[in-house]
Amino acid sequence: MTNKGTNLDPWYDSYADRTAGLSASEVRALFAVASRPEVVSLAGGMPFVSALPRELVTGSIDRVMSNGGGAMALQYGSGQGTPAIREHIMQIMAMEGIRGSADDVVVTTGSQQALDLVTRLFINPGDVILAESPSYVGALGVFKAYQADVEHVAMDDEGLIPEALREAIASVTSRGGRIKFLYTIPNFHNPAGVTLSWARRLEILEICRSAGILVLEDNPYGLLSFDEPAPHAMRSVDDEGVIYLGSFSKTLAPGFRVGWALAPHAIREKLILANESATLSPNSFGQFVITEYLDQADWRGQIDIFRGLYRERRDAMLSALGEYLPSLTWTRPEGGFFVWLSLPDELDSKAMLPRAVKELVAYTPGTAFYADGQGRQNIRLSFCYPTPESIRVGVARLATVINGELDLLSTFSSARLGKPIPLREGVGTPPPNIS
Amino acid sequence: MTNKGTNLDPWYDSYADRTAGLSASEVRALFAVASRPEVVSLAGGMPFVSALPRELVTGSIDRVMSNGGGAMALQYGSGQGTPAIREHIMQIMAMEGIRGSADDVVVTTGSQQALDLVTRLFINPGDVILAESPSYVGALGVFKAYQADVEHVAMDDEGLIPEALREAIASVTSRGGRIKFLYTIPNFHNPAGVTLSWARRLEILEICRSAGILVLEDNPYGLLSFDEPAPHAMRSVDDEGVIYLGSFSKTLAPGFRVGWALAPHAIREKLILANESATLSPNSFGQFVITEYLDQADWRGQIDIFRGLYRERRDAMLSALGEYLPSLTWTRPEGGFFVWLSLPDELDSKAMLPRAVKELVAYTPGTAFYADGQGRQNIRLSFCYPTPESIRVGVARLATVINGELDLLSTFSSARLGKPIPLREGVGTPPPNIS
Repeated sequence: MTNKGTNLDPWYDSYADRTAGLSASEVRALFAVASRPEVVSLAGGMPFVSALPRELVTGSIDRVMSNGGGAMALQYGSGQGTPAIREHIMQIMAMEGIRGSADDVVVTTGSQQALDLVTRLFINPGDVILAESPSYVGALGVFKAYQADVEHVAMDDEGLIPEALREAIASVTSRGGRIKFLYTIPNFHNPAGVTLSWARRLEILEICRSAGILVLEDNPYGLLSFDEPAPHAMRSVDDEGVIYLGSFSKTLAPGFRVGWALAPHAIREKLILANESATLSPNSFGQFVITEYLDQADWRGQIDIFRGLYRERRDAMLSALGEYLPSLTWTRPEGGFFVWLSLPDELDSKAMLPRAVKELVAYTPGTAFYADGQGRQNIRLSFCYPTPESIRVGVARLATVINGELDLLSTFSSARLGKPIPLREGVGTPPPNIS
Repeated sequence: MTNKGTNLDPWYDSYADRTAGLSASEVRALFAVASRPEVVSLAGGMPFVSALPRELVTGSIDRVMSNGGGAMALQYGSGQGTPAIREHIMQIMAMEGIRGSADDVVVTTGSQQALDLVTRLFINPGDVILAESPSYVGALGVFKAYQADVEHVAMDDEGLIPEALREAIASVTSRGGRIKFLYTIPNFHNPAGVTLSWARRLEILEICRSAGILVLEDNPYGLLSFDEPAPHAMRSVDDEGVIYLGSFSKTLAPGFRVGWALAPHAIREKLILANESATLSPNSFGQFVITEYLDQADWRGQIDIFRGLYRERRDAMLSALGEYLPSLTWTRPEGGFFVWLSLPDELDSKAMLPRAVKELVAYTPGTAFYADGQGRQNIRLSFCYPTPESIRVGVARLATVINGELDLLSTFSSARLGKPIPLREGVGTPPPNIS
């Protein structure tokens, strides 16, 4: 063939420019590691679906299949999603202060696909997306796949910092960048575990409004608060400037891949067309089962069960961190799945991971959550899936690894301070298991 | 806000360039029309899922939910799809002569998503895709959304014409175009209803190989042959040059949204990454149910039932066309869902559609299946969903519409031939119902 390609891939020269932006996420590689039963995984973000009573799901499925043999659930559906599930979605969003019309909801293949479709609608190569520092790894992957430039905006314990947002906008604008939207996870942030305060929500909306920047509010964990409910959604005070993304993956089950976007009217129209182009329609069967579940089951009570379960696990993790790693700092999430741990400056979370896996504990290195290589001093710990007992074991193992690294470093550091070792081959090279 | 937008859409100026390529397909508008019960729809491509015995589906679901409470089916899965379903998919493809490894299968959200992901991997704006003339409306929508230029290649009753392919390649190349792939539906073509002969498959593969053009073989209908099986897949003779797309939507049910791509190894890797970026993973629940169905049910027998059902409907359509529209020409599909009808030159299938709907019959105008405005002399008639009796009624109504149009035209034509009418306002303008 005339194709120039490499020996490994005859189609190497045929790929689109954007394909260079596709790379395996660090989380992906970890899924393989974490699946070994002897490893305590504090890495993934899998919800604990076993806490969902089987009969609630089978009862919903039975009702779907009893209705005309399930013919509609087995058929193609609307590219916008069924009217019935969109009405239920409005009721769910009302719990976060959102009013609106089911007409403006677009059901997607998980909220991940909504992220993909919104990015597709707005991003030309080189456009800028503002995102928290750190931000969700799966969103950063989408942004990179569409050749966006991500500008991280600093957070603190109250979430995104308005002054940092103003500075980021000024900085991007002054260098001629085109900002298309702010991507934010205001509640129980992934990975940072913090929640954006109500006052800041209003301030950030005003900053974005006056700068003509759309807000993409990603809220998969909002209903999973441990004590006080999260502040109302940003979308609840701004219909025209906010696209809200929601999901059934954390409050019910991710296996159906059903999420949604609530978008300003004109954007909603384009989202439906993009959805049809991408998949024709979201899966009917999942939508029908979820509709029956929301119709018949005590789904609010089930969310309360999940909240209690995750609160217990959050408590186990915070208490184990206090016990085993008292000299470090970490966030204290009031909901959601994640704690963000800061390491001493001399450690590198990415380099340390193989050693952790050897000690039978897995985590996600902070580097996964930055578009620019930051994060080596951070670790995301998830408490959603392992039991409280496993969480304690996992944190204890992590402490062994961290303390071991620190001991090694201090030994080398003292050695160097005491007597410099010349960098000759075989001398002064650290042992392979700390590289 | 500083955003310039229009009154209707404040974000008008923010969209990506590609978003201009999104437009509602003609098929989409027809779904709304076709859903009125009094209309006989020969428009959509919905499989007749009611012919799937309910107990085959419920039995599969029961087994999924009995296995650990369905915990794995309710969870996130691999971006490549489950190993179990990929093994089954290899058995299905073996029926079309394809050998290979389940490692090279990527499960997608229907084969529509595979089309989207392949296009995403290969197409820069302005790249050229070769496609049959006519081609599948949903593929043309994807290609447009990625700003590809589609070059149509002529077909006849044996499918794509190799000489026309050579000419198209030469023509595109001579004007400096970059051809990325040939998109083809070799079996029971949508919309044309024809099948590519075996000799031509080999010739077309050789043309593409020597020109360095990848082949995207879309085969949703291949197992739905009415008498003789379709020729083996193009992928069966070329592992490196063909991406094969398959689907459970027509042989089982579209409501699960499970399709797949079988790709050369290096492309496969990129497809998985693109899949993860787009949706994290295809829906686990659908994959688990389909796996149980393929494990336990007589799925080959069920395909035979579908074949018999669709053959009877094809026969009803051909016989009604012969009876009611004997002066026209149409294709005679040996499988699949569609007949391609040619109208007299003076008729316009798109302009005629509102009148057809008034007569309570719907079809898809040929213009939907071209990227370049052709198709006004063609109609796609689908026989997959309506009963044989409805098909007869629908074709009779269509004949009424067509003959009415022809009568009107011949009246006006005679009038013009007899005495030219000057084109003054209000004189010589055809009545609104034929425009």
